[in-house]
Amino acid sequence: MIFKKINSVKNAYKSPLLIKGLYDYCTTLNPDNEIIYKDVFRYNYREFKKRVQRFANMLSNLGIEGGETIAVMDYDSHRYLESYFAIPMTGNVLHMINWRLSAEQIHYTINHAEDLVIIAHSDFLPILEKFAGNMPSLKYLIICKDDDTKVSSEILDIYGEYEELMAESSDEYEFEDFDEDAVATTFYTTGTTGDPKGVYFTHRQLVLHTYNTAASFGFSGSVACRINSNDVYLPLTPMFHVHAWGFPYVATTFSLKQIYPGKFNLNGFIDIFTKEKPTFSHCVPTILQMILESNETKNIDFNGWKVIIGGASLTKKLAKSALEKNIDIMSGYGMSETCPIITLTHIDPKYKNSDIDQQSEMRIRTGTPVLFTTVKIINEQGKPVQNNDIEQGEIIIRAPWLTQGYYKDEKRAMELWHEGYLHTGDVATINSNNSINITDRIKDIIKSGGEWISSVQLENIITSHESVAETAVIGIPDEKWSEKPCACIVLKPGMTLSHDELKNYLKQYTETGILSKWAIPQNIKFVSEIPKTSVGKLDKKLIRNQFVESL
Amino acid sequence: MIFKKINSVKNAYKSPLLIKGLYDYCTTLNPDNEIIYKDVFRYNYREFKKRVQRFANMLSNLGIEGGETIAVMDYDSHRYLESYFAIPMTGNVLHMINWRLSAEQIHYTINHAEDLVIIAHSDFLPILEKFAGNMPSLKYLIICKDDDTKVSSEILDIYGEYEELMAESSDEYEFEDFDEDAVATTFYTTGTTGDPKGVYFTHRQLVLHTYNTAASFGFSGSVACRINSNDVYLPLTPMFHVHAWGFPYVATTFSLKQIYPGKFNLNGFIDIFTKEKPTFSHCVPTILQMILESNETKNIDFNGWKVIIGGASLTKKLAKSALEKNIDIMSGYGMSETCPIITLTHIDPKYKNSDIDQQSEMRIRTGTPVLFTTVKIINEQGKPVQNNDIEQGEIIIRAPWLTQGYYKDEKRAMELWHEGYLHTGDVATINSNNSINITDRIKDIIKSGGEWISSVQLENIITSHESVAETAVIGIPDEKWSEKPCACIVLKPGMTLSHDELKNYLKQYTETGILSKWAIPQNIKFVSEIPKTSVGKLDKKLIRNQFVESL
Repeated sequence: MIFKKINSVKNAYKSPLLIKGLYDYCTTLNPDNEIIYKDVFRYNYREFKKRVQRFANMLSNLGIEGGETIAVMDYDSHRYLESYFAIPMTGNVLHMINWRLSAEQIHYTINHAEDLVIIAHSDFLPILEKFAGNMPSLKYLIICKDDDTKVSSEILDIYGEYEELMAESSDEYEFEDFDEDAVATTFYTTGTTGDPKGVYFTHRQLVLHTYNTAASFGFSGSVACRINSNDVYLPLTPMFHVHAWGFPYVATTFSLKQIYPGKFNLNGFIDIFTKEKPTFSHCVPTILQMILESNETKNIDFNGWKVIIGGASLTKKLAKSALEKNIDIMSGYGMSETCPIITLTHIDPKYKNSDIDQQSEMRIRTGTPVLFTTVKIINEQGKPVQNNDIEQGEIIIRAPWLTQGYYKDEKRAMELWHEGYLHTGDVATINSNNSINITDRIKDIIKSGGEWISSVQLENIITSHESVAETAVIGIPDEKWSEKPCACIVLKPGMTLSHDELKNYLKQYTETGILSKWAIPQNIKFVSEIPKTSVGKLDKKLIRNQFVESL
Repeated sequence: MIFKKINSVKNAYKSPLLIKGLYDYCTTLNPDNEIIYKDVFRYNYREFKKRVQRFANMLSNLGIEGGETIAVMDYDSHRYLESYFAIPMTGNVLHMINWRLSAEQIHYTINHAEDLVIIAHSDFLPILEKFAGNMPSLKYLIICKDDDTKVSSEILDIYGEYEELMAESSDEYEFEDFDEDAVATTFYTTGTTGDPKGVYFTHRQLVLHTYNTAASFGFSGSVACRINSNDVYLPLTPMFHVHAWGFPYVATTFSLKQIYPGKFNLNGFIDIFTKEKPTFSHCVPTILQMILESNETKNIDFNGWKVIIGGASLTKKLAKSALEKNIDIMSGYGMSETCPIITLTHIDPKYKNSDIDQQSEMRIRTGTPVLFTTVKIINEQGKPVQNNDIEQGEIIIRAPWLTQGYYKDEKRAMELWHEGYLHTGDVATINSNNSINITDRIKDIIKSGGEWISSVQLENIITSHESVAETAVIGIPDEKWSEKPCACIVLKPGMTLSHDELKNYLKQYTETGILSKWAIPQNIKFVSEIPKTSVGKLDKKLIRNQFVESL
């Protein structure tokens, strides 16, 4: 491929894509808007900048000159937001510790990332104390807290307290420009097996992700939730979770009013929601469900609150109950490996005023790819599936903001990236409007007689039978069909169900084409309990092994 | 500066920022939206892609493999839009010929840019014929036209007609990825002296400019005109003029309905406006003035039409008459060297419902810098001016989308870029809301007694005197004050004015602080005519020379 390049004149400046550019802009549009932490802290963007500069000097005072990994282990707070900027902007890497992991896994990630500094909320000190003497890279443990309680440890050296160290540091710091491909952030993702895997993102990637999110929510007229700089932002996702989906960077750049709620609890949420009137949030489905199902939120007016759901699929039931409360709800899709935003649900303008049932159908879809992402859904032959919302395939992607590997783990990185595409491991269909819909994980899909059967869809249908409490559908090896679908079923107390009765029940779905006739489970086991993973998901690997052994 | 980089795993893909990424997306959101050319052509985005692929094959069929410069000399058309994509996406450079230049200058730019192909509207053939035998780089002249008239030339070889060549080319083409720093576009800018200067922009720069425009108009809640993908776009700026301010790329990426009006004329505009109902446009002030002052537009309902004014400053009078017709009007600022968008006018939310007078004050300001631009206003000592909207300084900038030189002209490029900042040559003030306001060109500002006096402001005030028809204010060298303000004045027929009367008149402005007392012109010449440049601007260089000679 031939193209033309022209050298820059000597004094010209190329302006690298650095987080500093986002930071610089945050006092441009609404510098008087506030960043709020519970009822503990509130300050405007001018003060935010001073705090970020203090943070940078706090690191300088430790003798840190860049290139180090600095971990944060905190709830959603103004401190965390400060670290999103100060750590990368001083040339360091922000390690966002997932405090929901097991202690063993947290320990692994601290050592694997080679954290030089850990800034941890005092709540997490007991966890860190377990690793005392076994964190070879750690030199400085800084504790942060929300009140005046004295924090101390008998077995860990605490270097200082965050607010005290901040107060000792100057609030004047000149951030320098450097290579936009410098790593800015890292965090760890866990699968069902093996050690956590470290993903990492550069300044350039985070800037492009920020631009893309602003353009997607601001300029795409059909995106389900339209957001702009007059909105008020309340995250309900932990900030260690894939950059809180990138929204803290967007919200800060365009100086939105932001509210950081600390450790999530329902009463705290109600207080904040009523007092500060957030207009948009994002969370996993269980958090929204908890909010909507609570008796204490019955009288709250949620009208116009925009909520983006990710992390797990949004069910139609939850979407409907949100829409009934006039919550503007939608789905987004991404992974730890993808920064994360890859798709967002859009509403065809002609359905803008359709009923709640139709609206919820559209809003629970995985969504339409955002600009600059190449999303392909490929079948077993590596060919794109038809845009008929029926044929299933694996989602493979390209985008300017995907992790370019797993840190110090080439083997698994080579499994993630294949022929220039990131393989998501998610199975989906696509419709004629370029809207995709995830049906299953590729390791759980049942490949039978040349067709792909979604275990998730089959589970949903079996569970809709009045006698069934819970089910797990798996594929087990079959000589003739490659795999055959099998089901473990927990019946409701006092209920009965025969294999033939179930087959009969499923017939209505095969006859209407919702299920393929190959999807009727060949073997069924009625059990009292279904194995789950530590985070409550069906442990299909174990279920499959137990099922095969029992045959 | 120390930072950390991690190598990508072998199969990972970085996704360069190429115009191809914008193109790929254009069938995602609203693929059925139409691109319309007068009443001659209309097609949807799927067909647009086919046409761009035909265009690419048309170039391949000429044996062009990339790295060449291909010029377009056309009115605003679907063809021009196709060239915005097909030419850069095949690794070539799109030279946008400014057909408003003198024939001599057009000739200069064709040879300086080394155009291998020129695609020209048949209207421009007579101009090109003047250069016959004197365009050494030119191999292929392709003519485009809007009707069936036969076009021929006795002195120029015409290789073919655009639509015929398109029809002969396949509509299947696989665009490749390549270096995002490849040059995508070039065009020429003229000053008052010297040859036209070639600016050039890379794929990366145009992609970032597109993202930035979408985010600015979509996500900034305070920008005066909010635009999104449901808008209908009608450009009223020639497409050779700084990428039509970047809007064709934005509109195409997000698949807006677009209307290209061909050669501007009022009746054509009225037809299109009435029939296709555009919701946003951009133009220079004179075009809007022509539209609003015409008797023929008296009955048109302009309610809600969004118009971005650039190229020359928007006067309060024009802003008011637009607002009176419920046109959502605003200013944007940029230059040929800046891709172009640098600032946009914003409205403080608390003034959202203020009266037309206040609204127009805000909307005529040069505006607030967009994201990732560093805009500094520096005084003669190189220090930033105060944010008091009084102190004046030169605007110097950084942004990721600035020309990195002038093509084959290092000397003038070194004058443009100085210590890593692009020096705009524009003088401005800035207020406490980060909104800047241009007062003059630096070569016209009068530096007297350590103060900067805006020649433009002084001209506006002198012209407000009932006896004055026109004036030009210049600074001429002065031993004591460095420069002293002087004025050439053309009086209205039958009117008289003495120097003392003028001084007295200006006193009210110095007493209220609007003018500095140093601004009272020391010398005045009453003349019958004031020298102008070819584009009708005051020729201050000549005026200054004549003034000095006459002293």
